[in-house]
Amino acid sequence: MTQRIVCYGELLLRLAAPGHERLLQSPALQVQVGGAEANVAVALARHGHRAVLVGRVADNALGAAATAELRRHGVDTAGVQPAPGRMGLYFLEAGAGHRPSTVLYDRADSAFARAGAQAYDWPALLEGAAWLHLSGVTPALGAAAAGAAIAAARAARAAGVRVSFDGNYRSKLWQAWDGDAAAILRELMSEAELIFADHRDIAVVLGVQAEGASAAERYAAAADAAFAAFPRLQRLASTVRLQHSVDRQSLSALLRRREGSVLETPVCELSAIVDRIGAGDAFAAGVLHGLLDGCDDAASLRYGWAAACLKHSVPGDFNLVDATEIEAFVAQEGYHVRR
Amino acid sequence: MTQRIVCYGELLLRLAAPGHERLLQSPALQVQVGGAEANVAVALARHGHRAVLVGRVADNALGAAATAELRRHGVDTAGVQPAPGRMGLYFLEAGAGHRPSTVLYDRADSAFARAGAQAYDWPALLEGAAWLHLSGVTPALGAAAAGAAIAAARAARAAGVRVSFDGNYRSKLWQAWDGDAAAILRELMSEAELIFADHRDIAVVLGVQAEGASAAERYAAAADAAFAAFPRLQRLASTVRLQHSVDRQSLSALLRRREGSVLETPVCELSAIVDRIGAGDAFAAGVLHGLLDGCDDAASLRYGWAAACLKHSVPGDFNLVDATEIEAFVAQEGYHVRR
Amino acid sequence: MTQRIVCYGELLLRLAAPGHERLLQSPALQVQVGGAEANVAVALARHGHRAVLVGRVADNALGAAATAELRRHGVDTAGVQPAPGRMGLYFLEAGAGHRPSTVLYDRADSAFARAGAQAYDWPALLEGAAWLHLSGVTPALGAAAAGAAIAAARAARAAGVRVSFDGNYRSKLWQAWDGDAAAILRELMSEAELIFADHRDIAVVLGVQAEGASAAERYAAAADAAFAAFPRLQRLASTVRLQHSVDRQSLSALLRRREGSVLETPVCELSAIVDRIGAGDAFAAGVLHGLLDGCDDAASLRYGWAAACLKHSVPGDFNLVDATEIEAFVAQEGYHVRR
Amino acid sequence: MTQRIVCYGELLLRLAAPGHERLLQSPALQVQVGGAEANVAVALARHGHRAVLVGRVADNALGAAATAELRRHGVDTAGVQPAPGRMGLYFLEAGAGHRPSTVLYDRADSAFARAGAQAYDWPALLEGAAWLHLSGVTPALGAAAAGAAIAAARAARAAGVRVSFDGNYRSKLWQAWDGDAAAILRELMSEAELIFADHRDIAVVLGVQAEGASAAERYAAAADAAFAAFPRLQRLASTVRLQHSVDRQSLSALLRRREGSVLETPVCELSAIVDRIGAGDAFAAGVLHGLLDGCDDAASLRYGWAAACLKHSVPGDFNLVDATEIEAFVAQEGYHVRR
Amino acid sequence: MTQRIVCYGELLLRLAAPGHERLLQSPALQVQVGGAEANVAVALARHGHRAVLVGRVADNALGAAATAELRRHGVDTAGVQPAPGRMGLYFLEAGAGHRPSTVLYDRADSAFARAGAQAYDWPALLEGAAWLHLSGVTPALGAAAAGAAIAAARAARAAGVRVSFDGNYRSKLWQAWDGDAAAILRELMSEAELIFADHRDIAVVLGVQAEGASAAERYAAAADAAFAAFPRLQRLASTVRLQHSVDRQSLSALLRRREGSVLETPVCELSAIVDRIGAGDAFAAGVLHGLLDGCDDAASLRYGWAAACLKHSVPGDFNLVDATEIEAFVAQEGYHVRR
Amino acid sequence: MTQRIVCYGELLLRLAAPGHERLLQSPALQVQVGGAEANVAVALARHGHRAVLVGRVADNALGAAATAELRRHGVDTAGVQPAPGRMGLYFLEAGAGHRPSTVLYDRADSAFARAGAQAYDWPALLEGAAWLHLSGVTPALGAAAAGAAIAAARAARAAGVRVSFDGNYRSKLWQAWDGDAAAILRELMSEAELIFADHRDIAVVLGVQAEGASAAERYAAAADAAFAAFPRLQRLASTVRLQHSVDRQSLSALLRRREGSVLETPVCELSAIVDRIGAGDAFAAGVLHGLLDGCDDAASLRYGWAAACLKHSVPGDFNLVDATEIEAFVAQEGYHVRR
Repeated sequence: MTQRIVCYGELLLRLAAPGHERLLQSPALQVQVGGAEANVAVALARHGHRAVLVGRVADNALGAAATAELRRHGVDTAGVQPAPGRMGLYFLEAGAGHRPSTVLYDRADSAFARAGAQAYDWPALLEGAAWLHLSGVTPALGAAAAGAAIAAARAARAAGVRVSFDGNYRSKLWQAWDGDAAAILRELMSEAELIFADHRDIAVVLGVQAEGASAAERYAAAADAAFAAFPRLQRLASTVRLQHSVDRQSLSALLRRREGSVLETPVCELSAIVDRIGAGDAFAAGVLHGLLDGCDDAASLRYGWAAACLKHSVPGDFNLVDATEIEAFVAQEGYHVRR
Repeated sequence: MTQRIVCYGELLLRLAAPGHERLLQSPALQVQVGGAEANVAVALARHGHRAVLVGRVADNALGAAATAELRRHGVDTAGVQPAPGRMGLYFLEAGAGHRPSTVLYDRADSAFARAGAQAYDWPALLEGAAWLHLSGVTPALGAAAAGAAIAAARAARAAGVRVSFDGNYRSKLWQAWDGDAAAILRELMSEAELIFADHRDIAVVLGVQAEGASAAERYAAAADAAFAAFPRLQRLASTVRLQHSVDRQSLSALLRRREGSVLETPVCELSAIVDRIGAGDAFAAGVLHGLLDGCDDAASLRYGWAAACLKHSVPGDFNLVDATEIEAFVAQEGYHVRR
Repeated sequence: MTQRIVCYGELLLRLAAPGHERLLQSPALQVQVGGAEANVAVALARHGHRAVLVGRVADNALGAAATAELRRHGVDTAGVQPAPGRMGLYFLEAGAGHRPSTVLYDRADSAFARAGAQAYDWPALLEGAAWLHLSGVTPALGAAAAGAAIAAARAARAAGVRVSFDGNYRSKLWQAWDGDAAAILRELMSEAELIFADHRDIAVVLGVQAEGASAAERYAAAADAAFAAFPRLQRLASTVRLQHSVDRQSLSALLRRREGSVLETPVCELSAIVDRIGAGDAFAAGVLHGLLDGCDDAASLRYGWAAACLKHSVPGDFNLVDATEIEAFVAQEGYHVRR
Repeated sequence: MTQRIVCYGELLLRLAAPGHERLLQSPALQVQVGGAEANVAVALARHGHRAVLVGRVADNALGAAATAELRRHGVDTAGVQPAPGRMGLYFLEAGAGHRPSTVLYDRADSAFARAGAQAYDWPALLEGAAWLHLSGVTPALGAAAAGAAIAAARAARAAGVRVSFDGNYRSKLWQAWDGDAAAILRELMSEAELIFADHRDIAVVLGVQAEGASAAERYAAAADAAFAAFPRLQRLASTVRLQHSVDRQSLSALLRRREGSVLETPVCELSAIVDRIGAGDAFAAGVLHGLLDGCDDAASLRYGWAAACLKHSVPGDFNLVDATEIEAFVAQEGYHVRR
Repeated sequence: MTQRIVCYGELLLRLAAPGHERLLQSPALQVQVGGAEANVAVALARHGHRAVLVGRVADNALGAAATAELRRHGVDTAGVQPAPGRMGLYFLEAGAGHRPSTVLYDRADSAFARAGAQAYDWPALLEGAAWLHLSGVTPALGAAAAGAAIAAARAARAAGVRVSFDGNYRSKLWQAWDGDAAAILRELMSEAELIFADHRDIAVVLGVQAEGASAAERYAAAADAAFAAFPRLQRLASTVRLQHSVDRQSLSALLRRREGSVLETPVCELSAIVDRIGAGDAFAAGVLHGLLDGCDDAASLRYGWAAACLKHSVPGDFNLVDATEIEAFVAQEGYHVRR
Repeated sequence: MTQRIVCYGELLLRLAAPGHERLLQSPALQVQVGGAEANVAVALARHGHRAVLVGRVADNALGAAATAELRRHGVDTAGVQPAPGRMGLYFLEAGAGHRPSTVLYDRADSAFARAGAQAYDWPALLEGAAWLHLSGVTPALGAAAAGAAIAAARAARAAGVRVSFDGNYRSKLWQAWDGDAAAILRELMSEAELIFADHRDIAVVLGVQAEGASAAERYAAAADAAFAAFPRLQRLASTVRLQHSVDRQSLSALLRRREGSVLETPVCELSAIVDRIGAGDAFAAGVLHGLLDGCDDAASLRYGWAAACLKHSVPGDFNLVDATEIEAFVAQEGYHVRR
């Protein structure tokens, strides 16, 4: 039987300038649905799992459309509740060449951000779940959402549901309220047995600077600190991105288990990148997919990395690739036209 | 020398479903700039006047783009200040046939709504102005905006600048705060010498129900009440719309001067309507144009009515038609292809 | 608890020329999902019911996309099976003015058309269902589909599930094989307690020509023949369409119960029609909605008629309107902008 | 064997604002190919005849594309010569409601306008031709084009090829040079046995004002003058257009033979007009089609009128409708969806 | 006098997802016309030759549109016959980065596939032809098409028309029927004096595996086997493609004459590839162009390779580049803007 | 106080094929506004300066739209006069891979080209200006424009306004009339204290061939000649572009002061170029920005180079990037998503 994975987070509308245009250079916006945790849910559904999104959306046509889009991609939306308030939005201007991409958040006071711990009946929502996935984006939205996130993580632990947590630290988002980011993220991480975070995220949360000559060494050092601080933590994973320009980048990934050395994938060269937004979520979903399917850590890491690489070829937040496509990439089946 | 007309109100981004689609039926939104008072400013600029918009926009790419669009259409934007906060948005689903159009406001907590009376240096902004135009939309946004609107109207009176006011009563918008709509609108109307309002608006504000067999009779009754309540008021004007469906409607207009009977335009049959949003603003701008150009009341009314009729043929909030086009319509020059 | 309504029929991809262009006048096609029974399922889901589609789609990206689109609109797609074969397609050229619309079917040998009676486990699929809805399109596709349709109708009767049937007689489609249309349709109609058919459909099936001065009289005569021929039949309903041009038409609807006279709705004038495809399916779904909600015949008929009228305002096969919108139309709440 | 009809005139690029937008309201233009005589050629090809266009286009990618588009629609383009100079352009802003359409010509100094009588080897070009069709647009472009047009008409007469001429009088175009419009048009008309012109065109050319209570009477009077002035003339035909707005118009047509009374078609009501540009050319091609097919005058007129009515439903200059569609309209086969 | 080259093969509609989207990710498809042999015909027409397509299309609007598009690009379509049946379609999802492109064929039972040897009057069709070009795609469609292809090749030999054949082996297509691919292709190749095939195609047909350290050595070995098996064969040519990702590839080409060593072009680096579909056809057309123009083998090969390289910059199946552009590439004239 | 910079040159409409399509491959053109000097004005406005365009546009909707677009981007358009004549146009086909971009000018006889020296009141237009910027494009348009350009440069010198001149030598444009390019450009350059030109431009004007092993050496030699020929000249600057393909290029820049050695920027690798048109104008505006802001030569050069590099990421002629973005590029702040 397929396992139920519960993702808790905000469903957003992404409003993007077409092609390589500057925001509102021409009078059109392309609309997609996104949000870190929703992205994970869609990818997991696409990889063949029973993914559930829990959250709130505006009780209007926009909220209904966002929910419908998630349903279209196979996510169980029974836990998405319409409620008063607005939809969280983000405006995206895709960069090009040497002009970086820009994200303009407009998510203050959303129906999701307003919903506190009491808004969700976690015991019921987590029933039968294998994992609860959440991220550092949610607590950044305000006290209510932060409280809800902590309640969710605690409820999961109480119910014996494994918790995965994606750091996703974005300093600008935390300016929305005066919450203590480090303390809150520490509390959330302390419930997780799987954390997606790089050494900078760890530094923000634990206040220690990871040092080392190579990315792997720095990662090992950060992991040491994380495993020491979070006794429940079993695995720490992250992508490593090198950026020559907006179009040409390279991507590898690292994973460290509580016991053992840092696992590392090959480096994938990315050129003519279509859309990098959501690559981190694709990675998280990929690693979770591996673990859910009983793969070993190396295979799970490789699957997550492959998923993240392929995400760069898909427009929108969602990683609309199937397990067979990811496996073909891992197996290096090449680039001939499939016909 | 062309006269300076100051419009004070919120600049909005309008995000519309393409064609006759339902909102987010397909993943695209068409973006235009709007807002009741901005619409008046653009129309006045297009009719050859020096129109100025005063207000606040978000200090980000969206606010800059909205301001630039206004400038493109010839409005003086020196009084549009970028400030922290978000842009007011509205989502539009154009109706068709027997399905009405829907507007979804998302303008809470905008940079404009946050700005109170102290945000604007009215004596400077009104210098050299012939008119100040504002509408009932602004005070609906919150206490700060309501205070700013009243301050603007008082400053205009103090400076000898004539005030025109468009009722624009929308009960849903007023739910944003607990302001006393009737009292605030009454205060604003009491400063105006020209009010755009129909008998329902007057009823909301004055609490009296205008009665009469015909539209003109009801309007005369409402006008009697208005002239009695507002000693500064010289003219009351309104469009009269009959709606057979979303596509087939008819439009006429009424104007009553303090002394004198109700003036009435012919009835214009509208079929295959392209976009009716902003027709009321087009009417207000047209009447103001007539008055600014020294036309008599009948000619000003006819000009406003003609502008409103033509607005139905232009996509977007703005009435992108020129004085010569309006005059050709008034002169019934017909529908042959101009070449 | 909401009731389960099972619709059995082919999910089609509709490939339409944009705007009012002739087919392939420009190098683009707009893609939507349709099919008579799928349209009914989507409308019922949109009206708040638990609608299920049963059928087969191609086991490729197109079949998956069509299924996902149905899921997006709230239809339960657990009964939609991917299978070898192609997707049924139809190319649509929307007419305008005095140029009629054209549909070019390309649905031969689809995965759906290949599937015979043995392809579906009807007892399981019908479990808990209140209604089974099918139409005359399915048997036209070939012997396998005809056999499957008859098996479905019989299984429904056996399981005590009420059967509704939409005649949908299209002579061109029946050229796909040498089946005896009248005999097969008669067999299907004999299982139904609710039939959507006009006097021409009845004439094809029963070989009797309904006569009468008015549409209602002709309808009463056709109904007499149908009630005589089909003892299970309780209600016969149909729309009546008058066509002045492609853009200007009028629509009313008729319903006759076994006992009683012909019920008739008002006539709705339709101008600037956006998309009439699927209006008949919208009508069927609306009548079913009324019956499911326990309305009387007149109210059910009016709801179906209102749904059909509103369908003309929505692009695509699906009637993307909600129950509240239909009720507002019935209540004649007018055409002002909803904001 | 199908007959060769030679059309001589300028191939233009039409650059149109999308939908109902004002020119350059958004940053896009839709490109189509047009030109009065090219429109006739395409319609004749579509109706099953061997139509040939003779003229010059710019020897660049634009000229090649325009020629290719004509070839796509079945016109023989062997007589279209690339030559130095620019392509004639016209910018189109489609009107709506009460806002008329606007055409902005930008065709001065085109490769076509530069080409005088010596540019064309008429005896060779007219070999095997049944008709030569030209219009009053060509001589308006300048002395060279006027000379070429007169040479063409004379060569046709010399070769026994029948000449049809469409008045197409547009005063603005004639401002391009100081030619004597009346004298030149008179010379061209004197070569024609079939002229498309209304009473205003005749008035311009002959300086006589046709009077009469009805359109038919005015037309009879104008025809009397024309038949007196042009001994070769056998038939005079014209459409009659009434315009309630840009969207709602009505169309009928008149034809008078040298002997006989004015023939008149029914009046066709046009609503939700898609594109009226080229309707006159569609009429001319339709009448020519009738005459080529050996129809009597009434049938030819009705065919031309039906073609013109259907043209209003097709975007672009070209009348992309087939003979069977025109015949179905004449036979009043109605507006049901063809499937 | 330009020479007549007859291409025999299926005209297809290509329905492609826009940009880099997954198939039906958004509700639009871009339509182009393609097909291996049609692509060759268009390229030859564009390079200045008289190219003729022979085949069948559906006798509906789609078939007519596909034929018109070919005519637009200068191909003689007198040999394209409308016939009952459907149009062959293929759906294309363009890949990006590390996600390969996908082609979904939907061409079973097309009007073309149904047409057997008796459908074509080869002696008449080949009259005056210099070459007949066909490919391995046609026999894969079914017994009728296979028979027709063999009949065409034999008729060409009988008429002294040179035959060129493009292997185009696609195992999935051959699953449409139970034909013996190797035997049929062998028969077709035995009629050809010019074959486009790489060492894998040869291996499929002849059952021998070409070995060698370099591409050129492997090619020489495959050519040895081919020249031994096919006495009429004079030249064997192929492109060599290396694929680093979907966007970054390199292309060179090889040609071996019956006598002589393997000729090789330089390697062209391809980045930011626009559309690689049809590059093989562009190569074939380029080599044929060289031979038709009397170039030596090296120049013909280089022309074909240059044409194939440039094809990667053109959207659609067709290689819309002119001889002068290909020559500029061969002459390394660089990448400055031409103005 | 911000300084006024006057740019004198033609405002053009740019009509571009969408994406990577060949010109008119599909029936759409994207419209942008451009022109070498207008591009400089927009960039300067965007960088925070008070930029003014002086010139003439057609007195029609196209001229008004082009002017409005400039105003949208913050340029002062009070000096843009509507006048009889046409708008200058250029058609753009963006290249890709190994297919170069193509520009097709259609600007003969424009309202701008017709305007001679007497059309502009230079003393008034230059009042309060810090710089006058013009380019070698203007005199290429004809004797009138050449005379106007020389008059402008002389008036600037007379008024003590500094003159900058961009060579922009395009031999094809100069074919529009029989002017002596070298002599006229020499006269214009003799008024300038800042010239943008590479060694080829200098060679055209001065008839001397700059030699040297490296780009910098050749540039030093050309500069020696220029400083000798033009006593007022203080700085000579140019970009250096290497082109591997249309998509992959590299860009550096050089500047030489009258005294001193050649300054050189780093080389920027450009891949997946979005739009290179206007990069030279972006460079000129960037250098001017540096000088206006009081930067030293090295910083001004680096700013210009950075602006030119970023221009390649922006669609359209205009360099829509802000000073902070340019500074971030110079500071190598990397390519992470800004959020």
